[in-house]
Amino acid sequence: MKAISIGLLGLGTVGSGVVKIIENHQDKLIHQIGCPVVVKKILVQDLHKARPAEVDTGLLTSNADDILHNADIDVVIEVMGGVSETKEYLLSALRQGKHVVTANKDLMALHGSELLRVASENGCDLFYEASVAGGIPILRGLVDGLASDRITQMMGIVNGTTNYILTKMSQDGLAYEEVLKEAQELGFAEADPTSDVEGLDAARKMTILATLGFSMHIDLDDVKVSGISTITEEDLKYGKQLGYTMKLIGFAHREGEKVEVSVQPTFLSDNHPLASVQNEYNAVYVYGEAVGETMFYGPGAGSLPTATAVVSDLVGVIKNLRLGVNGRSAVTPQFQKQLKDDSEKYSKYFLRIHVRDEVGVFADITSLFAKYGVSFEKILQLPIKKNETSEIVLVTHRSSLTNYENILSELNDLQAVKEIKSSYRVVRKSL
Amino acid sequence: MKAISIGLLGLGTVGSGVVKIIENHQDKLIHQIGCPVVVKKILVQDLHKARPAEVDTGLLTSNADDILHNADIDVVIEVMGGVSETKEYLLSALRQGKHVVTANKDLMALHGSELLRVASENGCDLFYEASVAGGIPILRGLVDGLASDRITQMMGIVNGTTNYILTKMSQDGLAYEEVLKEAQELGFAEADPTSDVEGLDAARKMTILATLGFSMHIDLDDVKVSGISTITEEDLKYGKQLGYTMKLIGFAHREGEKVEVSVQPTFLSDNHPLASVQNEYNAVYVYGEAVGETMFYGPGAGSLPTATAVVSDLVGVIKNLRLGVNGRSAVTPQFQKQLKDDSEKYSKYFLRIHVRDEVGVFADITSLFAKYGVSFEKILQLPIKKNETSEIVLVTHRSSLTNYENILSELNDLQAVKEIKSSYRVVRKSL
Repeated sequence: MKAISIGLLGLGTVGSGVVKIIENHQDKLIHQIGCPVVVKKILVQDLHKARPAEVDTGLLTSNADDILHNADIDVVIEVMGGVSETKEYLLSALRQGKHVVTANKDLMALHGSELLRVASENGCDLFYEASVAGGIPILRGLVDGLASDRITQMMGIVNGTTNYILTKMSQDGLAYEEVLKEAQELGFAEADPTSDVEGLDAARKMTILATLGFSMHIDLDDVKVSGISTITEEDLKYGKQLGYTMKLIGFAHREGEKVEVSVQPTFLSDNHPLASVQNEYNAVYVYGEAVGETMFYGPGAGSLPTATAVVSDLVGVIKNLRLGVNGRSAVTPQFQKQLKDDSEKYSKYFLRIHVRDEVGVFADITSLFAKYGVSFEKILQLPIKKNETSEIVLVTHRSSLTNYENILSELNDLQAVKEIKSSYRVVRKSL
Repeated sequence: MKAISIGLLGLGTVGSGVVKIIENHQDKLIHQIGCPVVVKKILVQDLHKARPAEVDTGLLTSNADDILHNADIDVVIEVMGGVSETKEYLLSALRQGKHVVTANKDLMALHGSELLRVASENGCDLFYEASVAGGIPILRGLVDGLASDRITQMMGIVNGTTNYILTKMSQDGLAYEEVLKEAQELGFAEADPTSDVEGLDAARKMTILATLGFSMHIDLDDVKVSGISTITEEDLKYGKQLGYTMKLIGFAHREGEKVEVSVQPTFLSDNHPLASVQNEYNAVYVYGEAVGETMFYGPGAGSLPTATAVVSDLVGVIKNLRLGVNGRSAVTPQFQKQLKDDSEKYSKYFLRIHVRDEVGVFADITSLFAKYGVSFEKILQLPIKKNETSEIVLVTHRSSLTNYENILSELNDLQAVKEIKSSYRVVRKSL
């Protein structure tokens, strides 16, 4: 049986993993798809850089056209990253009738719908399982496994760097900066960690998940984002007392026809399935009307885990090739996007404030919450030794975001309030 | 577009869920598959029994031929349970060219390969996602999501009844009989719980998982089974001290070309992803050479969760129907079955024994372990007040099953040993 020929765009961490898996698991691939899989050409920037032993340097090229306009190549695997140039490459490949597998979350979050449309117009598959949560087959889980259900909520720990940092801060009682530095030394965080720690990476993945899970085209701009860089060890200590674990949660919620998508540090109750996801692991919690609670857990990054998702997608493309049904599995969104207003977004909140240690202060604060109809689930008032300051830690019952932001703003204006130290969303196990 | 017509065999818990989901999620189904789905006939035993409001009693029949030989019916959904008669029904349906979706683990564990062969011969799909772990899309996870990987280990909490019982025993410090009774009253355990508590139900599911995950035809008889009915609260108490959680674990392990499949009560280290799976929830932990650790978590039973898996399979069948590629996705096992001998099965063990409180007893016992080359990870020796008895709790390092069983047998013969109270496999997070 004629071999299927692959063109690989990029030979970094994931690309090397793809080469390894295609080589090491060739017998399983042949058994499943009935023919060999051969990497024919690999696009790299520098032809002379040292490469892993598995790579035949004769395959390397620095000219993308050797792949995109190579009639022998059936499938293009994109693991080079980047957006503008990469998008042009993939559009060109699709227009040449080549199927595409990509691991590129930035590209799919920004231009996924255009690329999927062009793929469909050209009868090509475009698969991107590896773009979200690395080795976890979550996109297939949503599209195929839960095909019959109506998904109403997704909560994702979809960034390994931040989960590693929060785990270490929580376990060892260390400060953010200290753990970040250690994570950088260990290779769990980039030299410039902004995209991870400020939640942008997670937001891109939530864009992809929400679009698929809610069958509604969600843009990156629709995702409200905040990161973990201002979280303190005090916050985590209070969380522990209250039975909460801090995670950076990508949150996608549908109520009726309206959705919200956000990324933010969140206190989860310790018995939430996501609370026990530690270190660099990822997990996506999916709530469906019929199925109830499910969770998909695994490595969110890394050479071989991510490459597993890429090559599993490749198996899907080749199965379709052999059945003659490529380009027919993508489903266009069913619904027009409708985003919730802030007045329709409900949550519980953790709030830590410093107030003057004076008579009547507590009454002022509680009456402000009462004015907006927000009541408390828990209140801790703790005297702080210096400067006649009290620290108050509150957990509210459900409040609309509008009301809660009004409360925060009026708290800031209260003469008795010295500082709002921190505020986080709180999610309990039961919805 | 012409509707797809379904014949439903059985209208119990899962069957009613299937009717509900097809009705409630019709718009999503139509969007995905481009045509309506209609339940045309439902086989029941008693035509006059009271039925849920959703069911049009005009569809009921007590004659299977009204479905199996009904030319209008495209897909047969089997949710009636049972083995012999059900198998004949499904063979008949497949031979009539009808695609089949089944939730029947007993049938698939015993006759899966024959049914799949007949399906393939007749160009029909036979899908059975709901047969393992209810609403969790684990079979697709193995077959599609991890298609490119070589799976070396699966550990499953695949029986909700036993997980509920063990969770309650552990949380509330109650005895097995007490919790079983409560579970029966709450509907989490059957009046005759044998199949669940003795591990047979889990064994059937592990047969299906191991066959798919290892691409090797595993028979139910290959699975070594022990249940939870002899576990005591003392065992769980000691486990807690050692940082272990007790779970009934379906264990499937591949080393080189050889496999072992078993079901047994197992102490997991508390930081194992499966340790936090509580109550009636199920989860399957999958270790792949490339992907590493993944876990799929969700409801293992229940009307709507299981029905979600059934109807998602139905979506798969109908997508294939519309692409004209039914009966071509089943992959026959790649490998000849090779089972490990007991001398090739390695594990750590927890052992609790009562011994005479005499000089030299401990030396006798430890020298017996030394004779078989088995060393200890942890030893607790605790005096028990009455009858001059000491209780010894040991955790071994890795031992072959052969050696360990020899040790148990020789311990029984030692005059100093009064009773072997309990012995369990121990699994730590790192492999």
